[in-house]
Amino acid sequence: LKSINVAIVGYGVVGNGVAEILVKEKDLLVKKSNLDINLKKVFTRNWNKKFKFPLPENIKAKSLNEILEDRDIDIVVELTGGVEFPYKLITDAILSGKHIVTANKALLAERGKDIFNLAEKYKIRIGFEGAVAGGIPVIRTLREGLVANRIEKIYGILNGTTNYILTEMTKYGKEFKEALKHAQKLGYAEADPTLDINGTDAGHKIAILASLSFGGFADFKDIYIEGIESVDKMDIDFGRELGYILKLLAIAKDNGNGVEIRVHPTFLPADHPLSKVDGVFNAVMIEGNNVGETMFYGKGAGSLPTASAVVSDIVDIGKSIALGVGREIEITSMNWEHKDLKLVKAPDFYTRYYIRFTVPDKVGVLAFISNIFAKYNISIAAVIQKEKLESKLAKNIVPLIILTHTASENEIQKALEEISRSNLVKAKPILIRVEDEENNLENK
Amino acid sequence: LKSINVAIVGYGVVGNGVAEILVKEKDLLVKKSNLDINLKKVFTRNWNKKFKFPLPENIKAKSLNEILEDRDIDIVVELTGGVEFPYKLITDAILSGKHIVTANKALLAERGKDIFNLAEKYKIRIGFEGAVAGGIPVIRTLREGLVANRIEKIYGILNGTTNYILTEMTKYGKEFKEALKHAQKLGYAEADPTLDINGTDAGHKIAILASLSFGGFADFKDIYIEGIESVDKMDIDFGRELGYILKLLAIAKDNGNGVEIRVHPTFLPADHPLSKVDGVFNAVMIEGNNVGETMFYGKGAGSLPTASAVVSDIVDIGKSIALGVGREIEITSMNWEHKDLKLVKAPDFYTRYYIRFTVPDKVGVLAFISNIFAKYNISIAAVIQKEKLESKLAKNIVPLIILTHTASENEIQKALEEISRSNLVKAKPILIRVEDEENNLENK
Repeated sequence: LKSINVAIVGYGVVGNGVAEILVKEKDLLVKKSNLDINLKKVFTRNWNKKFKFPLPENIKAKSLNEILEDRDIDIVVELTGGVEFPYKLITDAILSGKHIVTANKALLAERGKDIFNLAEKYKIRIGFEGAVAGGIPVIRTLREGLVANRIEKIYGILNGTTNYILTEMTKYGKEFKEALKHAQKLGYAEADPTLDINGTDAGHKIAILASLSFGGFADFKDIYIEGIESVDKMDIDFGRELGYILKLLAIAKDNGNGVEIRVHPTFLPADHPLSKVDGVFNAVMIEGNNVGETMFYGKGAGSLPTASAVVSDIVDIGKSIALGVGREIEITSMNWEHKDLKLVKAPDFYTRYYIRFTVPDKVGVLAFISNIFAKYNISIAAVIQKEKLESKLAKNIVPLIILTHTASENEIQKALEEISRSNLVKAKPILIRVEDEENNLENK
Repeated sequence: LKSINVAIVGYGVVGNGVAEILVKEKDLLVKKSNLDINLKKVFTRNWNKKFKFPLPENIKAKSLNEILEDRDIDIVVELTGGVEFPYKLITDAILSGKHIVTANKALLAERGKDIFNLAEKYKIRIGFEGAVAGGIPVIRTLREGLVANRIEKIYGILNGTTNYILTEMTKYGKEFKEALKHAQKLGYAEADPTLDINGTDAGHKIAILASLSFGGFADFKDIYIEGIESVDKMDIDFGRELGYILKLLAIAKDNGNGVEIRVHPTFLPADHPLSKVDGVFNAVMIEGNNVGETMFYGKGAGSLPTASAVVSDIVDIGKSIALGVGREIEITSMNWEHKDLKLVKAPDFYTRYYIRFTVPDKVGVLAFISNIFAKYNISIAAVIQKEKLESKLAKNIVPLIILTHTASENEIQKALEEISRSNLVKAKPILIRVEDEENNLENK
């Protein structure tokens, strides 16, 4: 039975969960891992708050140095927020020879390259199962379970806040603002929900999954990200008439010319398994060349689910240490291809489109729009001209919905710009991308 | 770059897939694992067949001893069938100091205790990711990803053949025999499908998952197993009217008095994620005390999906060897509680029941049945008396369907026996168990 000493930095929702599991499930972890995992120190900036899992005085650290300078501490668990502070902390901890477990997706997506390079140099392990999809062990699955596969595509519902809001809008006809307020009341959205609803959080997570899948670092600023702030309930309803459900989907695929990574509201076939992932649940669909289509589903956030993932990393690294391999342990950098990913940047991708125009109810409008679509090589799959919606729109103004076949984002943008320049179109067209079997989303 | 030498014994569907991946994806595996995995020898009893992935002459072994006596071979991959032959093979290989990878669920479920005890004694690793749910990395998930959880329940659709047949019966109204024939034509059912359709295969798999989850060996003969051979399309249709879909469900739960393991046709709520797992796909739902509800989904069989799992074990064990730990590697026995599981044997469990009686269409029948149910403390949730089905039943004979609340299997069996003894009931009652929120199947 080997002792492993752990320190936690940052004692918020997840930190409390990790401490709770390490203390309450100590015996279970001994039995399963043959490790005596000891929570030796915890640091947080303010000890004068009330905590869900209160700690004895002797493990409350007064300073970070108390942890960094403690030679008995094997693993530092970083559970703070932001990027700069944890970057400095992890760098210092690596230089102090401590292994790292983190659930910080922003840090890994934006500064992962520097961190993993440093860790590789110093033969330090970085565990980050908690950074993506909470309790679902998707990092381990990509790295180990599916090691014998070339990953072709990943589709993820990776943000519980936005999925909760979209579910409320879809199932109960709520408007965005109302659904957001409700989510905040239930603790599913933060007071400042910006990074969730604008898609940044999902972007961080898909950047990490793409790095692991395709073996190189993705430059975060080149990822196309669009949030759900301006989703109109009306489009959710029209989409449903066409057989689609709206999700904030994170996509990474190798399209031959490079890796396409994007996050945006996406219509999915109503009978697709991802369409059925509701509320705060997360799901990740992974397609590998040998395994085919797989899907992993569970709670994407929350104290104990995320802590379950963090503790799995502590055990994993603890086992390496215990096996007496010293520093000769497996290094876990994401870029196993030893390269940066070549990203396909927006608008250089192809998908299907749902477009809602707001147009006068008169002859010639559809002809005008479809001529421009033809000019840009955009093939129309379906058209719905709705009766006017009295409550919403002015007199004689109606929504015109076009569903396209797979087309170039580039050409779509040009076509919409040209259409918008005319006097015919009364409001900026609404564009929602569509993924279905036509553009190779597997549905069994 | 460390070389790992592998031998395969048994060159059927999965063996061909493993060889194909090891050869074709050699470079990928080098990049991802830093291992040079070398397929050194393959043994099969008959080399005069045509193989999907033909092998060069120099790796075709003429005898098992050629493999067992080759000191360069690090890992023996057992992909034969049955129990006795592979038991002998694996025992010999362990004694020759070779690590083992197997996809043989029958062997592990029926003789796992002996094999793991021997492996533990000789510090040999046994990889068996391919034994359960094909390409879905559920073994690794239970052992590592969810290590910080007490597993409370597992529900699995673990047999692709039966799931394909039930899907055909449900979606296209086929009768059992017709669906089976179709499955055989497509290669989804073997010429002798007995062990699939009678539930044995799913029983083997849930025994393995239960061992890993609850940390002890399950005595296979004490597991309650019922197959789908006598499922009548009529019940699938009636179930659907009540909001249920029929699946061959494998269940393992710790009910406080012991571990309940059973496999039987089961009605699940139509909106439950498991109800949507169709065709040859497998899915496993795992509930842990910290992570909550998780679900894992993918292809449960087939050459490359299963090979994907087998190769992931080869890589995992190969890494242990390469890290230079010699024999000091993690031992992977399933019984981390170092005990045998205390099983709750049938009929000592509780669930809900769908029961179809075949009765004369006359006054008093329902009163008779419901009196007996009351006597045995069985509470009725719903009753459907169907109009007579002219094509199926004799004149004035109708199906009477009762859905119970949660009740004791023991009492249900007694009640049915007492009812059957009367002259009123014309045929043996059909009993199908029901799992839904009432008896704690999570549905978000």
